[in-house]
Amino acid sequence: MNRRSFMATSAAAVLAAGAVPRSALASLPEAAVSEGPQMIVPPLPTEGRPYLPVATLNSWSAPWRMRDGYKEFHLTAEPVEREIAPGMKAFLWGYNGQAPGPTIECVEGDMVRFYVTNRLPEHTTVHWHGILLPSGMDGVGGLSQPQIKPGETFVYEFEMKKSGTFMYHPHADEMTQMAMGMMGFLIVHPKEFEEHKVDRDFVFLMSAYDIDPGSYTPRVNTMSDFNLWTWNSRCFPGIDHIVCSQGDKVRIRFGNLTMTNHPIHMHGYDFEVTCTDGGWVPESARWPEVTVDCAIGQMRAFEFTADAPGDWAIHCHKSHHTMNPMGHDVPTMIGVDHRGIASQIVELEPDYMVMGERGMADMGMMEMQLPRNTLPMMTGWGQFGPIEMGGMFSVVKVREGLADRDFSDPGWYQHPEGTVAYPVS
Amino acid sequence: MNRRSFMATSAAAVLAAGAVPRSALASLPEAAVSEGPQMIVPPLPTEGRPYLPVATLNSWSAPWRMRDGYKEFHLTAEPVEREIAPGMKAFLWGYNGQAPGPTIECVEGDMVRFYVTNRLPEHTTVHWHGILLPSGMDGVGGLSQPQIKPGETFVYEFEMKKSGTFMYHPHADEMTQMAMGMMGFLIVHPKEFEEHKVDRDFVFLMSAYDIDPGSYTPRVNTMSDFNLWTWNSRCFPGIDHIVCSQGDKVRIRFGNLTMTNHPIHMHGYDFEVTCTDGGWVPESARWPEVTVDCAIGQMRAFEFTADAPGDWAIHCHKSHHTMNPMGHDVPTMIGVDHRGIASQIVELEPDYMVMGERGMADMGMMEMQLPRNTLPMMTGWGQFGPIEMGGMFSVVKVREGLADRDFSDPGWYQHPEGTVAYPVS
Amino acid sequence: MNRRSFMATSAAAVLAAGAVPRSALASLPEAAVSEGPQMIVPPLPTEGRPYLPVATLNSWSAPWRMRDGYKEFHLTAEPVEREIAPGMKAFLWGYNGQAPGPTIECVEGDMVRFYVTNRLPEHTTVHWHGILLPSGMDGVGGLSQPQIKPGETFVYEFEMKKSGTFMYHPHADEMTQMAMGMMGFLIVHPKEFEEHKVDRDFVFLMSAYDIDPGSYTPRVNTMSDFNLWTWNSRCFPGIDHIVCSQGDKVRIRFGNLTMTNHPIHMHGYDFEVTCTDGGWVPESARWPEVTVDCAIGQMRAFEFTADAPGDWAIHCHKSHHTMNPMGHDVPTMIGVDHRGIASQIVELEPDYMVMGERGMADMGMMEMQLPRNTLPMMTGWGQFGPIEMGGMFSVVKVREGLADRDFSDPGWYQHPEGTVAYPVS
Repeated sequence: MNRRSFMATSAAAVLAAGAVPRSALASLPEAAVSEGPQMIVPPLPTEGRPYLPVATLNSWSAPWRMRDGYKEFHLTAEPVEREIAPGMKAFLWGYNGQAPGPTIECVEGDMVRFYVTNRLPEHTTVHWHGILLPSGMDGVGGLSQPQIKPGETFVYEFEMKKSGTFMYHPHADEMTQMAMGMMGFLIVHPKEFEEHKVDRDFVFLMSAYDIDPGSYTPRVNTMSDFNLWTWNSRCFPGIDHIVCSQGDKVRIRFGNLTMTNHPIHMHGYDFEVTCTDGGWVPESARWPEVTVDCAIGQMRAFEFTADAPGDWAIHCHKSHHTMNPMGHDVPTMIGVDHRGIASQIVELEPDYMVMGERGMADMGMMEMQLPRNTLPMMTGWGQFGPIEMGGMFSVVKVREGLADRDFSDPGWYQHPEGTVAYPVS
Repeated sequence: MNRRSFMATSAAAVLAAGAVPRSALASLPEAAVSEGPQMIVPPLPTEGRPYLPVATLNSWSAPWRMRDGYKEFHLTAEPVEREIAPGMKAFLWGYNGQAPGPTIECVEGDMVRFYVTNRLPEHTTVHWHGILLPSGMDGVGGLSQPQIKPGETFVYEFEMKKSGTFMYHPHADEMTQMAMGMMGFLIVHPKEFEEHKVDRDFVFLMSAYDIDPGSYTPRVNTMSDFNLWTWNSRCFPGIDHIVCSQGDKVRIRFGNLTMTNHPIHMHGYDFEVTCTDGGWVPESARWPEVTVDCAIGQMRAFEFTADAPGDWAIHCHKSHHTMNPMGHDVPTMIGVDHRGIASQIVELEPDYMVMGERGMADMGMMEMQLPRNTLPMMTGWGQFGPIEMGGMFSVVKVREGLADRDFSDPGWYQHPEGTVAYPVS
Repeated sequence: MNRRSFMATSAAAVLAAGAVPRSALASLPEAAVSEGPQMIVPPLPTEGRPYLPVATLNSWSAPWRMRDGYKEFHLTAEPVEREIAPGMKAFLWGYNGQAPGPTIECVEGDMVRFYVTNRLPEHTTVHWHGILLPSGMDGVGGLSQPQIKPGETFVYEFEMKKSGTFMYHPHADEMTQMAMGMMGFLIVHPKEFEEHKVDRDFVFLMSAYDIDPGSYTPRVNTMSDFNLWTWNSRCFPGIDHIVCSQGDKVRIRFGNLTMTNHPIHMHGYDFEVTCTDGGWVPESARWPEVTVDCAIGQMRAFEFTADAPGDWAIHCHKSHHTMNPMGHDVPTMIGVDHRGIASQIVELEPDYMVMGERGMADMGMMEMQLPRNTLPMMTGWGQFGPIEMGGMFSVVKVREGLADRDFSDPGWYQHPEGTVAYPVS
């Protein structure tokens, strides 16, 4: 795990007045950073209440230290460079080196303290979405606290009163800062180790960006015509697989901070939503689903037993959200016969090629000239040919004979086969 | 309460043939009007079955009279001028002087009669959304009745068979008339006074407008790119606070007549949806939530006990819906360094200012030159600084020691502090 | 029923290697076709487990044969011409002569075999949405099988493990192929004849198209600004009525393959969602509703007893989705007084007419010059006048004294009155 200490710079930061307890001024915990999109599942905790850490797709969980009975975390809000998928990077704002920020994991009943250092060019705050806490810790700039100015560190502290599935994000210049990628998952594990226990627990946040082909910075004013639909700021084929051992009890949790609903569809199984950002759903109230619609500012967790082996697509069911950048106002070419005109053009321009008159499937296999730093519209390659997807798409890989979870192996969630899969009988 | 009689003009109106009972021709009830966006909670009813009136944000409840065993209401469909927030007015279509129209309140089992007078330049109808009634009273123009022509009065009468959360709106030239703001809340209180009883019961309807900066009339053909996202045709900071006494049992009810889902998020609490426009949700079926997604043509009520004091944001979680008008296709300036070019421009134009290269937060505090009749993109001021919001945003203020509800005081719902709040400890 | 044999052409097709069982090569079942948008409810099955067939609005159910213990169906993916409503046709891609494809009906526990012949100009697959099946039968091109090339026939076979409400659609060049209309309903009836039994069971799929006025082929790249919002690729007034006998137990099932949620609202009744594409909803979990929000890639069934006679509108509650093509960026004319300028123009152009200054209601009655192959923006005529609707709108007609279901009469679902209705008392 790539770590870098922000102690020196943090020490120079002005601590925000008022809410900072005197005891915290002595020294701040380390603000560890991640420098890439690799999934890192932390080891089992060695102090505090025990819990099974979650697997954050293409991301990691924040380290913490115990001090005076508090779990202390240090988040640094800052500009980051995020690889959206191999071949495309974006200049985003995030926390601790990446966007999304690290997943926060703690346990019901924990007293927690968050040091938040602002290294952005403008002020920010952190709102703890779904958490029951004192009004002054709620992170709404202007309403519950003064915004955290560039260079300052603000301290939040409160008790984690209930377990569940939450997130954190700014509530200051909120539209811009979320359009730039600022968000992170927050898991509160149940106090009782066996309660709501599963074998594998995956989490991701949905965000959308509008980045012009060839450029790096999102257009923050866009309201609906986004061209990058991401899970944890990653597009297919850059999104981690969800690898399970046959028979595992599996939970997948997600939240939505885009500008539209995302109906998350998983193949091969039916399942029930068991948790929202409001808490655990009683059994009597659960619906059978194969597609869970997640509104903005909502979080959903669903559970299933991985009894059916194979490769199962999991994706947003809005077909444009499983595409990478494309022109939404390009006229249709289906049924237009270009053969006459094309042959004339080819005399002038030998590389000329007409696309789309028979549909778009050719795009899945084609090596096109793309602007630099731009993903192909649809791509990916499976064991049987082109997958023709992008955006919010991944694969749940259920395999017999995967070793039991080995907590000493940080790569146990990674399947050695990569994208290419399992010979389906 | 500002009232004005429409009797003289109503007497001149041609009564629609057929559905109008002869007894009603003698005299029509008063069509009271409201001339502004102030919240007016009616006193406890002195006749008919008892109920606790609701508080309609920035609006009021329609008066009624008892006659021949019917509760009689008079709605006048007409052009209105609505203040969206201080500094901006819109020319809308509404009922009885404002848009939305007055909230209708009655009781399960009531026989009701609605006189609807059309003072619009085109025909209209009223559909009673969610109400179980005879097909001829359903208000679908052409299908269940002839449309009500300009100058005519049509009479609807039926029994309120069940309690719940409903609305009324036109079903004639429906897209245009709803894009112009025609809608109102309709509450049917339970027959049993104690059933589903709460201490405070707030209601609002969501509507969206597309009004060009500097102009007054909505573009009625817009399907998605709206620039004013409103609760009861009001934008932050023009939306009433939701003021509660600590320990109150509180219900918030809302409905959606825009063109997209609105996920309503409230801070500081979790809660359950207890009522839809289809009826009361059984306890076994309720989900814990912090964000309630409300689809178009849906209504939702959620309930909580106001035990956590403080200022709690309540808003649509689509971040563009908590903004006032802005250009959605303005290029991003983040990371662009204008210092060189700006100094050259300032030589020519001393007031020149570059915005957005460090984010948008400066906008929250800035006094910009705006076109007349245009709201700033993000605004509002709290006890700790700029709130940087607009649109669908308000604050739930939970305070100790607020007096019990005093029905002789029409301002009891208004908190004297205004926007600035409570010193959070 | 208009049928045409595809045996000759199918025999010439190359059968895909691998998944095709040898026994299937001998002869393929007939791929019957429908040549128009008429609703055809099949007779009660004479072999296999008994079930009550569903009524697919403006569409039909696929015939099948029993062979070696399998129900065999033959789907042909191909270009089709679909009438969207009288006066407008579209060039789509579908199955067996129409889009949507025929509804597949079978019974829980059935072994089924689907021959899929590709007559499109590009490759395709079929994904069986919601069905629990082996990974290799799941139909995701590249991931679970090689795509089916033009001219090839692929065979899917699996057991229908559970009853419910499902659909089929391509998972190859998916965005394009669904934008062209490729989809079909799939019903698995319960093994026990009496389980979940209703008297009438209606089904439709929602799709959206962007077809420029005067043209025929959808713009497949459009992400949000569609102009044709359809049920089974039909717009009002081309959508079949939902005709019920008073007292019938009725189920309406629908699924969504557009790019946005559709809140389906029915007048005159409240009801509960009883089935999703994940299975049957337990009674304890059901909500009372009048508007069911259906996300993309979701299916919903709701049930009610048709005790209230009359004409009840059923429609998507997004008001733009009950309109036919229109310009979403046309400026508003409401309140603009054109009388001066209009009289001057009329001197030059005698037919000049100003529209919209008093609202849009005139459009409902107007005979406008439209581009060929273009539907009027709002239209339809009821017993009381213009209905002023388009798109996703139909009418539930509940009548006393309709004969019991007569399975020998293929037209029993059609009400002889047509659009004009019942004298409401």
